[in-house]
Amino acid sequence: MNYKIVLHTLGRVLLLEALLMLLPLSVALIYGEDPLPFIIAIADAASVGFLLAKLGTEKSGTLYAREGFAIVSFSWIGISLIGALPFALSGEIPSYIDAFFETVSGFTTTGASILTDVESLSRGMLFWRSFTHWIGGMGVLVFITAIADKTPDRSVNILRAEMPGHSVDKLMPKTGSTAKILYRIYIALTVLEAVFLLCGGMPVFDSIVHALGTAGTGGFGIKSDSIASYSNYLQWIITVFMLLFGVSFNVYYLALLGKWRGIAKQNELWVYLSLAVICTAIVTVNISSIYGNLSDCLRLAAFQVSSLLTTTGFATADFNAWPQLSKAVLFVLMFCGGCMGSTAGGLKISRITVLFSHIRNELRRALRPRNVSAIRLNGRYLDAEAANGVTAYFALYIAVICAVFILISFEPFGMETNLSAAVSCVNNIGPGFGLVGPASSFADYSAFSKLVLSAAMLMGRLEMYPLLLTFALRRAK
Amino acid sequence: MNYKIVLHTLGRVLLLEALLMLLPLSVALIYGEDPLPFIIAIADAASVGFLLAKLGTEKSGTLYAREGFAIVSFSWIGISLIGALPFALSGEIPSYIDAFFETVSGFTTTGASILTDVESLSRGMLFWRSFTHWIGGMGVLVFITAIADKTPDRSVNILRAEMPGHSVDKLMPKTGSTAKILYRIYIALTVLEAVFLLCGGMPVFDSIVHALGTAGTGGFGIKSDSIASYSNYLQWIITVFMLLFGVSFNVYYLALLGKWRGIAKQNELWVYLSLAVICTAIVTVNISSIYGNLSDCLRLAAFQVSSLLTTTGFATADFNAWPQLSKAVLFVLMFCGGCMGSTAGGLKISRITVLFSHIRNELRRALRPRNVSAIRLNGRYLDAEAANGVTAYFALYIAVICAVFILISFEPFGMETNLSAAVSCVNNIGPGFGLVGPASSFADYSAFSKLVLSAAMLMGRLEMYPLLLTFALRRAK
Repeated sequence: MNYKIVLHTLGRVLLLEALLMLLPLSVALIYGEDPLPFIIAIADAASVGFLLAKLGTEKSGTLYAREGFAIVSFSWIGISLIGALPFALSGEIPSYIDAFFETVSGFTTTGASILTDVESLSRGMLFWRSFTHWIGGMGVLVFITAIADKTPDRSVNILRAEMPGHSVDKLMPKTGSTAKILYRIYIALTVLEAVFLLCGGMPVFDSIVHALGTAGTGGFGIKSDSIASYSNYLQWIITVFMLLFGVSFNVYYLALLGKWRGIAKQNELWVYLSLAVICTAIVTVNISSIYGNLSDCLRLAAFQVSSLLTTTGFATADFNAWPQLSKAVLFVLMFCGGCMGSTAGGLKISRITVLFSHIRNELRRALRPRNVSAIRLNGRYLDAEAANGVTAYFALYIAVICAVFILISFEPFGMETNLSAAVSCVNNIGPGFGLVGPASSFADYSAFSKLVLSAAMLMGRLEMYPLLLTFALRRAK
Repeated sequence: MNYKIVLHTLGRVLLLEALLMLLPLSVALIYGEDPLPFIIAIADAASVGFLLAKLGTEKSGTLYAREGFAIVSFSWIGISLIGALPFALSGEIPSYIDAFFETVSGFTTTGASILTDVESLSRGMLFWRSFTHWIGGMGVLVFITAIADKTPDRSVNILRAEMPGHSVDKLMPKTGSTAKILYRIYIALTVLEAVFLLCGGMPVFDSIVHALGTAGTGGFGIKSDSIASYSNYLQWIITVFMLLFGVSFNVYYLALLGKWRGIAKQNELWVYLSLAVICTAIVTVNISSIYGNLSDCLRLAAFQVSSLLTTTGFATADFNAWPQLSKAVLFVLMFCGGCMGSTAGGLKISRITVLFSHIRNELRRALRPRNVSAIRLNGRYLDAEAANGVTAYFALYIAVICAVFILISFEPFGMETNLSAAVSCVNNIGPGFGLVGPASSFADYSAFSKLVLSAAMLMGRLEMYPLLLTFALRRAK
């Protein structure tokens, strides 16, 4: 392992975090709140970052996959450790472990919260909470590569470990340019959502914060009832933007280039949209007995389906109290996630379509053993290695969910609560069912379980490999 | 599709069922109960069987995989449809759908019951119920091939679809001989258990019935509290035999030949035993707060762990009321199942070890893309095709569990109940958690859900492929 380059990059990431924290600091100043927690955190981030960047060196040998994985793992843990400081120092989240959980939940775009009264938080903290989603959504290292990449080779390794969803298609030959394009689309969509929300009469602060939370498919809100108290128009806007941020950014890039045929070939996109429509229809019918008014049912169903499918985690209804069928559909949706190359978490639609193609091929081969059919994804054939990667990922993913579920079952909560908490955290969603439903929080979990769930969120967001290869399988050289 | 041979074989299977039903008929006569329900059912099975055997022909072309799958599917559905008659005709299970569910549960060795008061059943019915486990456990078609195979080629195809667990190793070159050996080991172990139970003071009828239920890893008991009211000695005997019937029959065959080195290479066996020991240890410690006495805790933990690991489903305690950690461990165990080539259901330990090897290989390849490592199972290397079969099976298995879970969620029961019911039926276990826990039954499910769960049990027992290829993918020629 080339530690020098790992430390150096980690240092730069922390320096960037210090820079980014100037924004919540400004918010605190604007609203006349105590700026000290942010100032201390910025000072810490900057000094530790500076030290690490100096300790390591930039130019010491090549960067292999192992270093890429280590950089990603340490960066996410590092920014979370320091990002938790403002919450803890201000006393708004008195326990540091709680603050760490909340920050990991933010950076991993999960949105699971230990706060029982979110509305009591100061503006600066609320902004920082949602801003972590935005930073996490695109991945701190995409920024790093966009800003600082000089050697393309190196960036590819980091990107491979980091890019939301191991994007199958490379947008452009140079990763620096790719990162910049993703980055611009991301900013443009975020601004667009904030404008739409503003036009709908949402206050400026709320608009910005919710746009940040949607963009990262995060889900931290600023009200106890999440989005429920906003107008129907605003709920629809957020529904649409949640779905938009669950679409692969490839699609927007293709749209910018006017390559409509390329978009038509993205079967992942069509599966994703069909899934959203079908599940919305099922839930709409199923909850019509509760709400009566069909347009209300449709709005609530579309919002909750989009929120869980894209792993955002906003809520406009306590879906925990919905009929079993709706809960079952939402529970299964929690595993899906958005498209690869989006900011969504979860298993990703691409992987699911690959798994179904794999099943179909094997079923066919049971009848005709000599048949060999390839797997197509988004108009291209997948080689056996890529398919193996997907099947291994799926098995690992299920194994991790099982392990997390067992580890948090030291808690006295029921199976519905613990299992959905594990599923929700690994998939970076936020709320689950039972005692971790949208109307409640993760506050009652023990410190041990909070750390397990934090690890689960990181595993899910980083798609398993980096953390496992850095911390668990180091001997397997 | 060669319908003639499918019909002919189905006919022979029903004739065999008529023959096998002479046994419960005798039991009814011995205990002076009404023999009429069995007589009518036997007459039906014999006449329909005779008709089908005549309608089809034995010697009409070759038997391909498609026909093999169709024979297996139709046979299991056919024997269940007719096997349900005695229950329905006698009025002991008034609803035919309930009787069908109970019979499918029997033949698939699941042990899920709709009976709320099993002790009110007559002796003949209780015997027939447990006997279906025994018949199902080894697979009606293993008998068929053992008795009636003439062309080895044909048998291989049926066996491939039917053999418990797609046994990776062929025991002997000729399937007829293989079937006979399995058959003898199965009978010998069943008799051995009955003798051990008799020696422990269990009444003759109870001993036979429980031996049949253990052998098939089924789990139908004859008392409301399953095995709880029997002595500690008897509970330990059943624990040991549940574990023995979850071991691959290959191992017994190797033991008969004195090939101890071959047994040492069966890594599936060692994983299976380790899993049983580790989970028993965890549960023992976890429930010690409830029962106090450590030897009681050990006995209860070992029994429940063995019962769910081997997918038998007997119970000596209401594990639904156990602490969350024990419930979580048992829930995850429900997915595992016994060894391939045993009578157990579930995913099977072999598949799980293959999946973990696959994950390990892919993780290694993330670091060193040029690395290619093979997967070893029981001392042999698996080719890529076999590994693909396992990963596709796993994905299909999870998809089927999700589908069953959603389909039975029209019921008002909670997520714990419905999810564990789906998991329990697909894995052929029997009891689940919540309202389908060991102290309750599936009686409250609607007719629709009972049919869905019956299909789930058949899917699980026949390892997905036969039913899907016969009923769902027929167009994929």
